[in-house]
Amino acid sequence: MAMHHKDLVGIETLSPEEITLILDTAEKMAEVSHRPLKKVPALRGKLVVNLFFENSTRTRSSFEIAEKRLSADTLNFSASASSLSKGESLVDTVLNLERMQPDAYVMRHSSPGACQLIRPFTKAVLVNAGDGAHEHPTQALLDALTIRQKKGGFRGLKVLIAGDIAHSRVVRSNVFLLKKMGADVTLCGPATLLPPHLDSLGVKVTTDFDRALDGQDVVMMLRIQLERQKKGLFPSLLEYYKYYGLTEERLRRADREVIVMHPGPINRGVEIASEVADGPYSVILDQVENGVSVRMAILYLLLGGGDDETSHS
Amino acid sequence: MAMHHKDLVGIETLSPEEITLILDTAEKMAEVSHRPLKKVPALRGKLVVNLFFENSTRTRSSFEIAEKRLSADTLNFSASASSLSKGESLVDTVLNLERMQPDAYVMRHSSPGACQLIRPFTKAVLVNAGDGAHEHPTQALLDALTIRQKKGGFRGLKVLIAGDIAHSRVVRSNVFLLKKMGADVTLCGPATLLPPHLDSLGVKVTTDFDRALDGQDVVMMLRIQLERQKKGLFPSLLEYYKYYGLTEERLRRADREVIVMHPGPINRGVEIASEVADGPYSVILDQVENGVSVRMAILYLLLGGGDDETSHS
Amino acid sequence: MAMHHKDLVGIETLSPEEITLILDTAEKMAEVSHRPLKKVPALRGKLVVNLFFENSTRTRSSFEIAEKRLSADTLNFSASASSLSKGESLVDTVLNLERMQPDAYVMRHSSPGACQLIRPFTKAVLVNAGDGAHEHPTQALLDALTIRQKKGGFRGLKVLIAGDIAHSRVVRSNVFLLKKMGADVTLCGPATLLPPHLDSLGVKVTTDFDRALDGQDVVMMLRIQLERQKKGLFPSLLEYYKYYGLTEERLRRADREVIVMHPGPINRGVEIASEVADGPYSVILDQVENGVSVRMAILYLLLGGGDDETSHS
Repeated sequence: MAMHHKDLVGIETLSPEEITLILDTAEKMAEVSHRPLKKVPALRGKLVVNLFFENSTRTRSSFEIAEKRLSADTLNFSASASSLSKGESLVDTVLNLERMQPDAYVMRHSSPGACQLIRPFTKAVLVNAGDGAHEHPTQALLDALTIRQKKGGFRGLKVLIAGDIAHSRVVRSNVFLLKKMGADVTLCGPATLLPPHLDSLGVKVTTDFDRALDGQDVVMMLRIQLERQKKGLFPSLLEYYKYYGLTEERLRRADREVIVMHPGPINRGVEIASEVADGPYSVILDQVENGVSVRMAILYLLLGGGDDETSHS
Repeated sequence: MAMHHKDLVGIETLSPEEITLILDTAEKMAEVSHRPLKKVPALRGKLVVNLFFENSTRTRSSFEIAEKRLSADTLNFSASASSLSKGESLVDTVLNLERMQPDAYVMRHSSPGACQLIRPFTKAVLVNAGDGAHEHPTQALLDALTIRQKKGGFRGLKVLIAGDIAHSRVVRSNVFLLKKMGADVTLCGPATLLPPHLDSLGVKVTTDFDRALDGQDVVMMLRIQLERQKKGLFPSLLEYYKYYGLTEERLRRADREVIVMHPGPINRGVEIASEVADGPYSVILDQVENGVSVRMAILYLLLGGGDDETSHS
Repeated sequence: MAMHHKDLVGIETLSPEEITLILDTAEKMAEVSHRPLKKVPALRGKLVVNLFFENSTRTRSSFEIAEKRLSADTLNFSASASSLSKGESLVDTVLNLERMQPDAYVMRHSSPGACQLIRPFTKAVLVNAGDGAHEHPTQALLDALTIRQKKGGFRGLKVLIAGDIAHSRVVRSNVFLLKKMGADVTLCGPATLLPPHLDSLGVKVTTDFDRALDGQDVVMMLRIQLERQKKGLFPSLLEYYKYYGLTEERLRRADREVIVMHPGPINRGVEIASEVADGPYSVILDQVENGVSVRMAILYLLLGGGDDETSHS
């Protein structure tokens, strides 16, 4: 069993078998992060370029740690200081980097489809670290690993994703993955934060958070980006919390063994109460830990780390 | 003999024996920096996160070089670009990083006590790289190493620390260390730059710089932060220099074998004359060199580098 | 045969034999970048400080990749966040870094002569990565490598350098190198972008781009820095393109086997037409690839990598 893709641009094109392979490999990688010497030589002599056109210290750090644990060389290429500020196009930037012979790019970009745009121009492995509200596949995979660890599997699992569905970087990838693996997904948010055509994703959609919580096995809360609040999409943070904040009381409607997830960083008292975020059902920090493991697994599988282990100098 | 602390948060809790151990280890580390191959495998496979919530290129560079000479992996995590700018708390940031399994944090923060605040939330080694005007223990240790190299020891040594006592990041750590090791410390500055209750530190305090210099073995000048000058704490830089600038003429009042120190960067013609900073008594650049050695020693001792040397892969 | 210089500050002082040695070494280094494991241990345990006082992500990335392929440790020291923003001088910054025992500096600075200024203050190898409009020797060397690969040599070769001659970082280094190697160089640009005294460089100078193109073997286009356009040095970008933009039609005046070069990033439709930049004569991306090879060669030769290869631990 191996990956049938050169790149990880999205979850949409992965098979359930590939998803399972990634999660299984991530479990093995997790073991590396708990050794006294947290490093394997799998990607020694490989160059990974972290190509971040949007600030995301947390995601970049998770990838950078994953790369270093696999002994890859890393180059942090941030757009703000680069030729893009001099008017160079994304494709020209990649065509230039390409000739420095990188083995992989990890790319974060604000535009949906940015990864698809550059794909024809690179021989290197391309890992999407979030392209606008399109896909953020490693987030969905770390979420899946967390769910599998806590729930044993996905089939028939009731999963609620709630909050700012419209602007979230993580909804689509999670829906693709959960549907592929047989889960039953509901999306919930205020009408102003629900984009049209969601039903084409094969999910239930509702604006009633309280009812949506009934009997859920997994509740995944989304971050309210505070800067959007000025656009008038909801009256106030307090009112948002009143109707869509996950409180302990509300959580009682869910299954007794519910797990609560959040891609972070959390807004305490906006989309989630502190008691819930820090409480016994919360697996938010497990998600962070699984992020490193999943990113190690992806880089290992796509960069063919296995072959090099015997041949490294 | 070993360190009895998991962390280096301040000098206040160190024993004289621990201080001596650190300085002795730093002397051995200095030798590594002068080899053609400036690297030992002591911390191979360990991850050190440089967590800088204030810009300090010089201190970060000194730590980063120390980490690389010990073969640790490094992650530079700067706050300006991170989730903290999205409103995440310091503790939440650390709780997240913690799950990426770092072995140590090197933290610089503008708030006194920031290290103590996060300490309960981390299993990793915590090294304080300056928390506001509270402690900056590696600076005091590099100063101590420099003094020991030039003066042979501390007992009965007369040390004057002069300048902006109130806002200095280095005064408290230096006073704690020098008192523990038996030196005789005087603090001197204009009344507006002397905080209250200094005498509780067991030091002499004076505003008369000329008299304070009499017979000193060590004169440690502090940086005037030029941006504070607007607050009206002294009339002008010229007037400051007139009363508190260390000139060659003034320096003649000190012991004939006096050494002159400064944590850098220096303001020539403000707190120190160029002839003094570049002159034969100045050990300012020795301090910089000792900075790398002391930081290597701290990381080596706290991360148990000794144990790994035999087991590295 | 070895380098007779400790540093690479400019092309002006290199002999043709040294230039040939660098190009020959770069050809060997190119091979490393195409291996599955793109890394040799030549500079293991050496510290290279990338000292960038101007943003230049592309040049810094090329150097950083070169350093990592040679297994050097790297420190990125950017000026904006450093003590220089606190008023420290360039020389004081170097005197401080020097005591952290770096093996080499790669320096980019906006002031012509910045490298010469710091040279007396460092024992480490100094590589000029561009000092204002003075010299940018690694650019000239990567250009030379590209020309040699495509044309077989330099003697009698007709080379035209065209565009913003006055503000270019690359003109002087290229002219020095091409003249030393026996090429026949013409400079061309609008009169407002031609500095005085160019003829003292031993080149032809003209404002007539069309005629200048006649029979050229190599056409090297220079970047128009769009921010200069406000200074009124030429009426408009459109008018610039009309008289000095390299179009397919114009290019027909050159030799039938002409190659087209550009230091990047290109301004499509300003100094060069897209059809030319992406066309069969363009070697612009070969230049980028050769940049890594040439920088590896320089660091290898100046840091005496050869000696360490047998002694690395």
